Amino acid sequence: MIILMAHWATEKHIEDLREHIIDLGMAAHIIESGKRKLITVSVSGGPLFDKSFETWPGVEKVFPIIQPFMLASREFHQENTVVPVGLKKKNSTPVFLGGGEFHVIAGPCAIEDEKTALEIAFKVKEAGCSLFRGGVFKARTSPYSFQGLGKSGLKILKKVKKETGLFIVTEVLEIQEIEEAFEVADILQVGTRNMSNYRLLESLGSTKKPVLLKRGMSSTIKEYLMAAEYILKNGNPNVILCERGIRTFETYTRFTLDINAIPAIKQLSHLPMLVDPSHGTGIWRLVESVSLAATAAGADGLLVEVHSNPQMALSDGLQSLIPERLKSLVDKAKAIKKVLRVYE
Amino acid sequence: MIILMAHWATEKHIEDLREHIIDLGMAAHIIESGKRKLITVSVSGGPLFDKSFETWPGVEKVFPIIQPFMLASREFHQENTVVPVGLKKKNSTPVFLGGGEFHVIAGPCAIEDEKTALEIAFKVKEAGCSLFRGGVFKARTSPYSFQGLGKSGLKILKKVKKETGLFIVTEVLEIQEIEEAFEVADILQVGTRNMSNYRLLESLGSTKKPVLLKRGMSSTIKEYLMAAEYILKNGNPNVILCERGIRTFETYTRFTLDINAIPAIKQLSHLPMLVDPSHGTGIWRLVESVSLAATAAGADGLLVEVHSNPQMALSDGLQSLIPERLKSLVDKAKAIKKVLRVYE
Amino acid sequence: MIILMAHWATEKHIEDLREHIIDLGMAAHIIESGKRKLITVSVSGGPLFDKSFETWPGVEKVFPIIQPFMLASREFHQENTVVPVGLKKKNSTPVFLGGGEFHVIAGPCAIEDEKTALEIAFKVKEAGCSLFRGGVFKARTSPYSFQGLGKSGLKILKKVKKETGLFIVTEVLEIQEIEEAFEVADILQVGTRNMSNYRLLESLGSTKKPVLLKRGMSSTIKEYLMAAEYILKNGNPNVILCERGIRTFETYTRFTLDINAIPAIKQLSHLPMLVDPSHGTGIWRLVESVSLAATAAGADGLLVEVHSNPQMALSDGLQSLIPERLKSLVDKAKAIKKVLRVYE
Amino acid sequence: MIILMAHWATEKHIEDLREHIIDLGMAAHIIESGKRKLITVSVSGGPLFDKSFETWPGVEKVFPIIQPFMLASREFHQENTVVPVGLKKKNSTPVFLGGGEFHVIAGPCAIEDEKTALEIAFKVKEAGCSLFRGGVFKARTSPYSFQGLGKSGLKILKKVKKETGLFIVTEVLEIQEIEEAFEVADILQVGTRNMSNYRLLESLGSTKKPVLLKRGMSSTIKEYLMAAEYILKNGNPNVILCERGIRTFETYTRFTLDINAIPAIKQLSHLPMLVDPSHGTGIWRLVESVSLAATAAGADGLLVEVHSNPQMALSDGLQSLIPERLKSLVDKAKAIKKVLRVYE
Repeated sequence: MIILMAHWATEKHIEDLREHIIDLGMAAHIIESGKRKLITVSVSGGPLFDKSFETWPGVEKVFPIIQPFMLASREFHQENTVVPVGLKKKNSTPVFLGGGEFHVIAGPCAIEDEKTALEIAFKVKEAGCSLFRGGVFKARTSPYSFQGLGKSGLKILKKVKKETGLFIVTEVLEIQEIEEAFEVADILQVGTRNMSNYRLLESLGSTKKPVLLKRGMSSTIKEYLMAAEYILKNGNPNVILCERGIRTFETYTRFTLDINAIPAIKQLSHLPMLVDPSHGTGIWRLVESVSLAATAAGADGLLVEVHSNPQMALSDGLQSLIPERLKSLVDKAKAIKKVLRVYE
Repeated sequence: MIILMAHWATEKHIEDLREHIIDLGMAAHIIESGKRKLITVSVSGGPLFDKSFETWPGVEKVFPIIQPFMLASREFHQENTVVPVGLKKKNSTPVFLGGGEFHVIAGPCAIEDEKTALEIAFKVKEAGCSLFRGGVFKARTSPYSFQGLGKSGLKILKKVKKETGLFIVTEVLEIQEIEEAFEVADILQVGTRNMSNYRLLESLGSTKKPVLLKRGMSSTIKEYLMAAEYILKNGNPNVILCERGIRTFETYTRFTLDINAIPAIKQLSHLPMLVDPSHGTGIWRLVESVSLAATAAGADGLLVEVHSNPQMALSDGLQSLIPERLKSLVDKAKAIKKVLRVYE
Repeated sequence: MIILMAHWATEKHIEDLREHIIDLGMAAHIIESGKRKLITVSVSGGPLFDKSFETWPGVEKVFPIIQPFMLASREFHQENTVVPVGLKKKNSTPVFLGGGEFHVIAGPCAIEDEKTALEIAFKVKEAGCSLFRGGVFKARTSPYSFQGLGKSGLKILKKVKKETGLFIVTEVLEIQEIEEAFEVADILQVGTRNMSNYRLLESLGSTKKPVLLKRGMSSTIKEYLMAAEYILKNGNPNVILCERGIRTFETYTRFTLDINAIPAIKQLSHLPMLVDPSHGTGIWRLVESVSLAATAAGADGLLVEVHSNPQMALSDGLQSLIPERLKSLVDKAKAIKKVLRVYE
Repeated sequence: MIILMAHWATEKHIEDLREHIIDLGMAAHIIESGKRKLITVSVSGGPLFDKSFETWPGVEKVFPIIQPFMLASREFHQENTVVPVGLKKKNSTPVFLGGGEFHVIAGPCAIEDEKTALEIAFKVKEAGCSLFRGGVFKARTSPYSFQGLGKSGLKILKKVKKETGLFIVTEVLEIQEIEEAFEVADILQVGTRNMSNYRLLESLGSTKKPVLLKRGMSSTIKEYLMAAEYILKNGNPNVILCERGIRTFETYTRFTLDINAIPAIKQLSHLPMLVDPSHGTGIWRLVESVSLAATAAGADGLLVEVHSNPQMALSDGLQSLIPERLKSLVDKAKAIKKVLRVYE
């Protein structure tokens, strides 16, 4: 941490602050730069950045030196983290996220009934996917919208899993639901509205279940990696990141997919990174193009909403692909991945 | 709801959609406007707006007709809601939010120890305030930051209440904490990161305890009123709104306080509306000016961070006023309120 | 400027960079902070901050030390700048912006015809205002919208000036229009879309005419003050700032008025600061509340759209007050200003 | 246009408005939807959407029916526009933007001196590019930054053109500069800060020179197409669009490149669409990944900043690639384009 003193700071301001820092057990050095004075502060054992030093008289600004996230940072963990899914399952081939494989997780926003779920799941499988997504606990903006099937939906997911062999990805909204969904889910998803639900993240951190953590719609890249840190710090290394669009002034699309975040996060962190083009655009006509963009930008996979009958979907029909279009998207994405591998 | 058909929509597109709407039990009328066709859709018994109709072939856009929130809307409830606090308490005068009184809720971001809490609380009282805020369950961006005292903090709040007679406002982050904080808290606060934690809102809706619901930092005014609807719909009419700054491109301030939201929400809704200038600016030097602005714009009160020693605060010291400045702020705000009352 | 070296920077990286800085005629000092190395760079004669040092191998980040604007900064010019308007006019009392007086500049968005302009101007005068605004050169999003009367509008402004004695504020969009509007205008306005039209700013800087520079709708406070710097640097000290709303994700209002910017800019800069609540909200029903907020926050005046018949206005009727409401707004704003003066 | 009447609108409100519309020469039809009344308004000869009808008593909201841009819209012009560059030049092969070819326009942000410009230009040519970009008229945030070489820079561009045979792309900031740059420039560029400089757009519209119009950093997709409309409406069909990043709350990158805008604009409009990943990210380490993303999303080409010595660049060194990296980027982008063509 570097503390920049104001141009009007007195010797006493600087000396008082220096003493306070030393009292806190840190090291402080005063240096001059032009007409200004700076104090560099260091501490052994961890990142230090405390904005509240800006409340001291004579202080103008405080700058961080290293990133505030450690476990999620590539600075301390150079190799890519590879998250295995379905490792101990019999009769199924495990998949690995973050290690060079490319996976498209597909399925409906919400599980509506067994028949529709199975129908979609078989088409997802036919399109060449190994992972099925389907929500049973839903977070809807309006209390008058469909809120998900809850526990009875979990039974449908179990059936899908058994009949198709697909791995299951489903969202949890509160601590109690972790336990309920734990058995059937191969990956537990945390939605954008819960990225900062730190109690939930801590609970997921105390398991070893892979967690697909979506970026908060108004979270910076750094805040996002800090949220991942909550899970990692509690002992669960199996964190999968997922860019899903951020909120901007543009209203033509539902959100603005932050394509920059893909290479940025791959450089800052060792964690696997997916992209959700369905929420990221909100318009199914844009989903394929943006999926291919995410693939070319270096994503380890995609999370795509698919519905066999979007017009009748109880949630997010507007942004769901029909299964026929999924196949085309998967083929093209894999072709891009393949052509780029030549240059590595 | 109005459905605007695309310029290339065929007669069959229109007819199929009309039949589907009628099958759903709604009324549909086809009208022409220039070269385009529109379908107006109505239903008895509630607001209807379903974007998913945009997935039908030939549909270009779907427009809502009435607001999607009903219980929070002034359209169906013209008079201001007045939320009473401390009505059944002996030895204390209740306060009323939303009915013409003006209240400044003040206190530290986080409760740190009994001595500091009491010291601040007495100064808050001296400044003319009746409500004390102090967090014991904290939502911090970094897992390495101070996370609040938890249950032992509740005991301190109890002591503050007993010794000062101030009403207590404290935040809850998850369902279980509602029960823990229920006795000591006169108002339960939901923070910006939990505005869309619908499970938490539903639980709070099943009590009658006043709920101070902060606006999500990236929530539109309409989404915010929909979150209030979750609480109201579950049976709790005592909802207090609070603008606390939204996330924008501006980085000089921590957030951008949305001053427009005050008159806008007072016109759209009958609920009481407070403003939090401490988070809304993130800089104590701006707090007084923005507090006065909020007062002049029609807020029913303020929520202000105060700390007797901001330099030593474990959270948000940067935006906390010293108690001496609180008194000046309260006096000026009340003077503005008084001068504006002349013109009513 | 402080240059923070990456954790992997070698001795050679640091030495090469130090030599380059010295070659450029600046002073460089290498210091250690924890495991990192920093280089502080200083130069006599001006602010120095050059992000491009981040391209050097081994560099992680570059921090500024002082603000990049000097002439607009209160750091180098402590007293408020007072901009006089109409100083040399006979038969009229000059007004002073930024020196304690409070002025509401009012009038229609666009001048439409002489009769309407005069009608509005007389009502503006009756409401107690000394300055009249009216656009003749218009910047409209659509080429199909009314583009302003141009030069014939200037004649109408001249008539308004003569008949009412009001000072005239009008916008210019390009260099040539400065000359055309120079005689009639007492203040030349630069609109939000031209805040970064640096050629226009330079030209205005080479006159002494007061310039009302609106904030760009997506400009940070610092970029805004840098735009003012373009005018000041060219020799014109008569710059008046005006917050008019920034672009955010909120769609209920046309823009989000940045109330924080008022005290922030008054602290950072010595220039007078107005607020435009008409564009800042886009909704006439919000204009009075937000005007009072701006006044309470410390604005030196307001810029308000008024139209005697908003329904027939050729531009921005939606956000225009009828003159009757202007009077009420001015009275209340002055009452707030008066009550706050007691506490100074 | 559809006018939605408020729930409290009276018969008189509706009748007065209907009469006014008819007086304006438009057609008005009143219809009922649930408890609300709507008025549909149509006019022959053009798009009609006038928000100012919301100022009429009893009106709640006004909705557009068709897009406000006509010439830029695919609705009225289905085939892709192909912009030819260098058609009449001897000794050079023309290039075509928007018709299936893929072009990377590369070069330095600013022309600094002849030697450097030629050095970079030859490397741009070696990398397989046909178009060279280089600024001589610069728009810089700070008046203390390098402002471009101006007219002497145009001579350098002339030399580059002659020696390398590359086509020249350069920016103009004001009307007078159009004439100055007209001869040497094969494409005239309008920067993000001038997207709403309508006087400049009108002037460019009265030529036939290809115009590369960058998106305003805070412009919506619709406002952007309206700016293109200004050029088209004045008679110049040769408009090339370019997404270059929008302003959001994210601060890790300089801007947020709006990848959604590529397929969205290709669907809404027939104009060619490029992407500028250099400004879109602000970080050279992200440029290649984002370039490939833009290519996969359907861009017709890229605009990339290249500098042989970014450390010494007078502008934007931070986001400039060294020429060696340009070659790799071009090869990969063309490989993606090729692999996707298989699926068409």
